[in-house]
Amino acid sequence: MRALALRRGAETAAVVEKPRPEPAAGEALVRTLRVGVDGTDHEILAGEHGGFPAGEDHLVVGHEAVGVVAEPNRTGFETGDVVVPTVRRPPNGGNNYFQRGEPDMAPPSAYHERGIDGAHGFAAEYFTSRPEFLVEIPPALAPFGYLIEPISITEKALELARASRSSFEWSPASAIVLGNGSLGLTTLAMLVDEIDRLYCLGRRDRPDPTLDIVDELGATYVDSRETPVAEIPSAHEGMDLVYEATGYAKHGVESVHALAHNGVAALLGVPRSWSFEVDGGAFHEQLVMGNRALVGSVNANARHFRRAVDTLAGLPAWFLDELVTGVYGLDEFERAFTDDDSTIKTAVELSTR
Amino acid sequence: MRALALRRGAETAAVVEKPRPEPAAGEALVRTLRVGVDGTDHEILAGEHGGFPAGEDHLVVGHEAVGVVAEPNRTGFETGDVVVPTVRRPPNGGNNYFQRGEPDMAPPSAYHERGIDGAHGFAAEYFTSRPEFLVEIPPALAPFGYLIEPISITEKALELARASRSSFEWSPASAIVLGNGSLGLTTLAMLVDEIDRLYCLGRRDRPDPTLDIVDELGATYVDSRETPVAEIPSAHEGMDLVYEATGYAKHGVESVHALAHNGVAALLGVPRSWSFEVDGGAFHEQLVMGNRALVGSVNANARHFRRAVDTLAGLPAWFLDELVTGVYGLDEFERAFTDDDSTIKTAVELSTR
Repeated sequence: MRALALRRGAETAAVVEKPRPEPAAGEALVRTLRVGVDGTDHEILAGEHGGFPAGEDHLVVGHEAVGVVAEPNRTGFETGDVVVPTVRRPPNGGNNYFQRGEPDMAPPSAYHERGIDGAHGFAAEYFTSRPEFLVEIPPALAPFGYLIEPISITEKALELARASRSSFEWSPASAIVLGNGSLGLTTLAMLVDEIDRLYCLGRRDRPDPTLDIVDELGATYVDSRETPVAEIPSAHEGMDLVYEATGYAKHGVESVHALAHNGVAALLGVPRSWSFEVDGGAFHEQLVMGNRALVGSVNANARHFRRAVDTLAGLPAWFLDELVTGVYGLDEFERAFTDDDSTIKTAVELSTR
Repeated sequence: MRALALRRGAETAAVVEKPRPEPAAGEALVRTLRVGVDGTDHEILAGEHGGFPAGEDHLVVGHEAVGVVAEPNRTGFETGDVVVPTVRRPPNGGNNYFQRGEPDMAPPSAYHERGIDGAHGFAAEYFTSRPEFLVEIPPALAPFGYLIEPISITEKALELARASRSSFEWSPASAIVLGNGSLGLTTLAMLVDEIDRLYCLGRRDRPDPTLDIVDELGATYVDSRETPVAEIPSAHEGMDLVYEATGYAKHGVESVHALAHNGVAALLGVPRSWSFEVDGGAFHEQLVMGNRALVGSVNANARHFRRAVDTLAGLPAWFLDELVTGVYGLDEFERAFTDDDSTIKTAVELSTR
C-alpha cells in the first residue's frame, strides 16, 4: 500500500510503498479516507517536533484522520463503519492514564502519538487500531471527519476552562480567539451559539479568506498590529474567555490582561523558549484580585472526540466549505502542505469510499 | 465605645472613642470578642492598601473577627450566639454578586470591605451587621474564631484550584505552600490530612517558631535561598498543588515550573507592579504540554466561612496554641501589631465574653 512518510534525514514527506498492516488480535483494519494537515504536521516536516518510531527509518505522518472499517476482526465494529482514530497510544502495553480513558493527561513518558511521535500515523491507505481508540461517526460526516481531531482539542480546552470556573456562577458573554488559523476559526464557529460577543485576533490585511469567515460568523476582527493583546479591554472589553491558538510566547502572560474579572484564558499553542521582560507583578496581581485563571491544554481523549462528533454535525455547511480550501490525492500531496494566505485547512485523500 | 482606628494622615492606628452603633432594622448588634491581625492590616497602616469610608476622617480597622450577638433585633439570631462576620458589603444597596451569595467574585466597584476599604471594620467594642453577613459558630470555637476569616480565604482558593482539575481524575499527593506566615502555616495544617507529601517554602534560619510548626506538621521545609521555586522539582519533586501566600511577584510565573504534570498553582498574595525578565516561552509551554493551571483567588463568601468553621474545629489544639503567639487587650494593641520573627499570629481582645 502507499503511505505518506517522513524518512530520517529527509526535509519533506514522500509517498512510500509499505506492506498493508496485518491487524493483530483485537485490532480492526481501517481503510483511510482522508487525513487532515495542521501546524503540527508542518513542524514535524521541519524537524521541529515529534520523533520516529523506535527502530524505523521513517514516520508515516497524519494524526487527523477518518476511515472505514475494512476488517472488524471481532472488535465489535462492522465492515463499512466510519471511524475516527484518537492519537495517543500506550508505549508499553498500557498504564493508568490509558486504563481510565485519560491518555491526554499522561506525561510524555507514558504515550506515543500516532503520526507525531514514536508511532506511525494514519496517512496510509490502511491502518490498524484497537477499538477503544476508534470513535464511530455518522457516514454523512465522513467527508469532514478529519476535523473531529482538531475539534476534540478545543472540546478539551473548553472543558478545562469551564471546569476552572465551575465553583461559582459564570456565564461567559465575551470571548476572543487569538489566531485566525483553522483551529482558531473552528473554535470561533464552536463558540458562536454560546457567546454573545465574539472576537478574533489576527495580523492579516483584507481581503483575506479567514477574515471573511470571521465576518460571516458575526465576530469582530482585532488586528494585533493595532491592538496588542493586553490592550484588548481598553479597545473593546474585558474578555470572559481567551482562547490562545497561535503559540506566540508573549500571549501566555498577556492573555491575563485581556480578561474580564473572573475570566479564564485557555492556552493551546506551544511556543519555544524565549526570554523577555514582563510586568510580573501586574500579571500576578491581575490573577489574584480578579479571580482570573490560566489553563494549559494539550491533546484530547475519546470522550472529547465523541463530543466533537456532535459539534461537527452542528457546524454550518457554508463554514466547512469555506474552511476547507483543498482536498488532494496522494499524488499531489504537496498541495495539501502549501501554507499561504489563501490556504486555511487542507486534507489528503487516501480513498474515496 | 472604644475602637481601633486609622485616622486620615496618621501613620499608625489609635484607640478612639465612638458612639456605640445603633442597629438599623434587620441588623444585629454584635459585641466583639477578638479581632485578628494580618498582613493586610499592616499594609493598611502603612498606607499601601485600602481606603476610608466616604465622608469619614478615620477607618475602624479589623476584618478578621469573632463576636457575640448582643441584640438580635429580629435577625433570627439569639442573644449570646457566637458569630463571625464576612468582610464584603454592597456599596449601594446591593447587586447581583451579593444577591447570589458571591460577593467574593465582585469587581472592585461592587463592594466595600469592612476594615479594609470603604467601610468600618470590627476592631470596636460593638459592630452591627445584617444576618446574611454573620456566620454562627460553636461557642467552644470563640477563642480562635477570628481565624475563620483567613481559613475561609484558603477554603475558596482550594475550591478554585480543585475545580480547575475537576474535569479529570486528580488526586494530589504532593503540595507546597509558598510562605511560612500565619496563612501559609494554617493552609499547611489544612492540607495535612489530604496530601501525602507536604512542603513549605520560607527564607528563615532555625531555630524559628514557624519552622518548628512546619516540622511538627510533618512537612518538609524548603529554604528559598537554597532552592528557588522553579528548581523545586529537581530538588524535591514536581508539585500537584502550589499555594502562593507570599505575594512575591516572581512566584506567579515560577510557580508553574514547580508543578507536576496536571498540577495547579493557586495565587493569593498581591504583589505590586514589577518588571523583570522571564522565559515566557517555557512558561507558556509548561502550561500547555503539562495541562497545568494557574488560578488567582481573592476574598471568600459565606459558604467558605461555613466550611472554615468545620475546618477550624478539626485543627489540632497544639497547632492553634503555637500559631497564636499573642492576644492583647485594646490598651496594648501595639503589641498585636509587632511583626518580628517570634510573632506568627496575633489578635486584639475587645471583650472576654
